Amino acid sequence: MRYVRFTRDGVTRYGLVDGDMVRPIAGEPWTDPTPSGDAVALSAVTLEVPVIPRTFYAAGINYAAHIREMAAKRGETPKFPEKADIGYRANNALVAHDQDVVIPAHATTKINYEGELVVVIGKQAKHLTEAEAMSCVFGYTIGNDVSERTWQRGDRTFWRGKNTDTFKPMGPWIQTQADLDAMETIVRVNGKEDLRFKTNDMIFGIAHYISQMTRYLTLYPGDVIWMGTDGTSPDLVHGDVVEVELTGLGVLRNRFVREGA
Amino acid sequence: MRYVRFTRDGVTRYGLVDGDMVRPIAGEPWTDPTPSGDAVALSAVTLEVPVIPRTFYAAGINYAAHIREMAAKRGETPKFPEKADIGYRANNALVAHDQDVVIPAHATTKINYEGELVVVIGKQAKHLTEAEAMSCVFGYTIGNDVSERTWQRGDRTFWRGKNTDTFKPMGPWIQTQADLDAMETIVRVNGKEDLRFKTNDMIFGIAHYISQMTRYLTLYPGDVIWMGTDGTSPDLVHGDVVEVELTGLGVLRNRFVREGA
Repeated sequence: MRYVRFTRDGVTRYGLVDGDMVRPIAGEPWTDPTPSGDAVALSAVTLEVPVIPRTFYAAGINYAAHIREMAAKRGETPKFPEKADIGYRANNALVAHDQDVVIPAHATTKINYEGELVVVIGKQAKHLTEAEAMSCVFGYTIGNDVSERTWQRGDRTFWRGKNTDTFKPMGPWIQTQADLDAMETIVRVNGKEDLRFKTNDMIFGIAHYISQMTRYLTLYPGDVIWMGTDGTSPDLVHGDVVEVELTGLGVLRNRFVREGA
Repeated sequence: MRYVRFTRDGVTRYGLVDGDMVRPIAGEPWTDPTPSGDAVALSAVTLEVPVIPRTFYAAGINYAAHIREMAAKRGETPKFPEKADIGYRANNALVAHDQDVVIPAHATTKINYEGELVVVIGKQAKHLTEAEAMSCVFGYTIGNDVSERTWQRGDRTFWRGKNTDTFKPMGPWIQTQADLDAMETIVRVNGKEDLRFKTNDMIFGIAHYISQMTRYLTLYPGDVIWMGTDGTSPDLVHGDVVEVELTGLGVLRNRFVREGA
């Protein structure tokens, strides 16, 4: 099943996608998915960020080629993570499918995409074993962990480099089923394929991350975990359109525009 | 004015404190403070975390003595921040005044308090100058940025060291007025004064942080900014009660308990 968060006539709510139509539901998909109201055409609604999480988790580095290629770019020895230390991103930076990523006028040219699988939590969870971990997962969506590499490396935190407004596109919907082992992540820039990798080829998998995280923290319904990316991105410029496709899940598309360009 | 978020008869809402009484209000203090319902005794309600922020900001290092003393503990040269790079904390870790801080059984003995002034945002804000910055501030509360120093230094992120469940006590209320220049931060352990410093003796002040942050990000009502701490804490043990007082604002009190002790 595929759920969207959408706005129509000034009201934002969740709906269940059925072909080209959306049927509104009473609550959030993980609290009350009871149908409520008439179905409308998907093309007649505005898609919103599929959830504003209580806490926005991100694995950061979690694929081998990304670590090797980023280290090579910096002339450094690759450093692989020794354990599943989760990181964070900020809700102010979220934008929906088809909304613009706005690059601040004084940013450098080092603007990169990172196409990521996003895990959406559906049940409150603490102290889950790896075998139990997937029981708290409601579904999946797609994220683009947009980064300004100069700020990412030069600042004391990731506040500007990763969390500038609009730097975290997420969507277009939450899907409850996914064949993770068959899934490929494909990134296209202006319609041309730029990167392709096996989505589940992670250093630390979803179940391992969740079991490690829930030793210390409680996951809540609506929390999201961005699982990291492989490969590297070209430097994006004003007008570029980036599509992140997760096969069997969907396509997240956003245009990049430079402030004042 | 002093607002509390409280639970009574299973319902959580905001109220305005008037002496020993709380008068419920219709919405959040920054959206709809209209009185709504009968006043009840403050002693008859359970205080909750005063706000679950959309984004939880934290300055981290922002006082000179704290940086010097922490560096000395590690046998390093003190490194002062060159600019106001804001950091983050996680909502899962929040607990209210009088709730316990629970130290995981396998944590080391390096459990420290950090008493902090917390700024609560009341208006959506972007691109504020330093002169305009305070216009988006609704009020102030108190935070204790509890840290496990071994995890803080050894992990790739602050996920366990700073954001383990219950490691972020915040409260007891939000106060709209504060004489920041006169304010002192006083920390007591088991009733005995352990630390005292001038609250506003920050490296980068509130207005400077807000003006720098809003160059890149939108602040939303209910967002919080923890302003950092001065000095250093002893290693806290099972049963210790820590009180963080901000003079003229209130006292945040929490007992520390070790899991399985």
